[in-house]
Amino acid sequence: MDRPLVPFGKPRTERADAARNRERLLDAARRMIAEHGVEQVTMDGLAERAELGKGTVFRRFGTRAGIFKALIEADEHRFQAQVLSGPPPLGPGADPVPRLVAFGRARIAFLLEHRALARAAMEPGQPLPGGDVDLTALHLRVLLAQADPDLPNPDGLAIMLKAALEGPPLMFLASEPPRPLEEVKLVLGEGWRTLIERLLS
Amino acid sequence: MDRPLVPFGKPRTERADAARNRERLLDAARRMIAEHGVEQVTMDGLAERAELGKGTVFRRFGTRAGIFKALIEADEHRFQAQVLSGPPPLGPGADPVPRLVAFGRARIAFLLEHRALARAAMEPGQPLPGGDVDLTALHLRVLLAQADPDLPNPDGLAIMLKAALEGPPLMFLASEPPRPLEEVKLVLGEGWRTLIERLLS
Repeated sequence: MDRPLVPFGKPRTERADAARNRERLLDAARRMIAEHGVEQVTMDGLAERAELGKGTVFRRFGTRAGIFKALIEADEHRFQAQVLSGPPPLGPGADPVPRLVAFGRARIAFLLEHRALARAAMEPGQPLPGGDVDLTALHLRVLLAQADPDLPNPDGLAIMLKAALEGPPLMFLASEPPRPLEEVKLVLGEGWRTLIERLLS
Repeated sequence: MDRPLVPFGKPRTERADAARNRERLLDAARRMIAEHGVEQVTMDGLAERAELGKGTVFRRFGTRAGIFKALIEADEHRFQAQVLSGPPPLGPGADPVPRLVAFGRARIAFLLEHRALARAAMEPGQPLPGGDVDLTALHLRVLLAQADPDLPNPDGLAIMLKAALEGPPLMFLASEPPRPLEEVKLVLGEGWRTLIERLLS
């Protein structure tokens, strides 16, 4: 049952407002990035664009990097939803090897496409904003066991495959790719496919 | 022929002195770390232990982190010498698959054993001191081609295998391993062996 935690309903209304403001700010940030690039997004500019007070922006995101963190988190949730309940082969319903191949390709593309955002979301002394890294580890571990229940040392392999998959796209955080993005996606995606298919054939 | 670059031999003598001081400082640092751990090494303490002036220590290493960087570099050079000209299967003379397996095991052990030094060598805003990372990429690329000249997309695979090999031990830089070091070495080493043997069988 929908049981109110406080008697007067005020916080409930505030929470709905907060969620609406959050979406409004994220939408405004996405439009600013699409039009002018990540560099041009400021706390003040975002408040103006979203037609909200500066205080709201600061309360919501804390710092400028916090805007980009929130954008990545929202996209990570959408990515996870595709993996957990979207159409196959990324979502459930396909065999484990094609699912692993599809997951790798999608994850590589996701990380490469989010590298400008991820770079902007980094704050000194804070860990790299990598989103929900545990989903990758867990997903690989489960699909490896489904593909080959007798695979020796699946824990060690899952750790290494996660690094093989996410490390190279994250390296591009530090610098622009030396090659066109589509080519990098293809090289890494095909490398991943060979690795998975030979490991589990 | 041994041709002097300057007429009076003074810089030559100074270079020999500098090399001797460097070795003396590194030896003193290694003894201090073995006895009291990385945390206890300071610029002043090192000068005292090596019986050299503080100015020499600062000129040689710049910062405290520079001491640990220099120690890692010296060990990296020794590691590389074993790979390039040591006994097989790590050195030349073995078949490419056993060489790849041996290289992976040795590299995992090296990175895990150097994690306290590597952590101490990190400086804010500087890239992770990873030693000569290019040797790993190059070595993997060459051995992959030797093991299977028809391997599709060897560049992509070499990039991914480097990440699979070096990523997990480097993750332990941020935290102590949750499991005993020998167990971590075994799990990652066996994961690597399975990956390589199935990829190249």
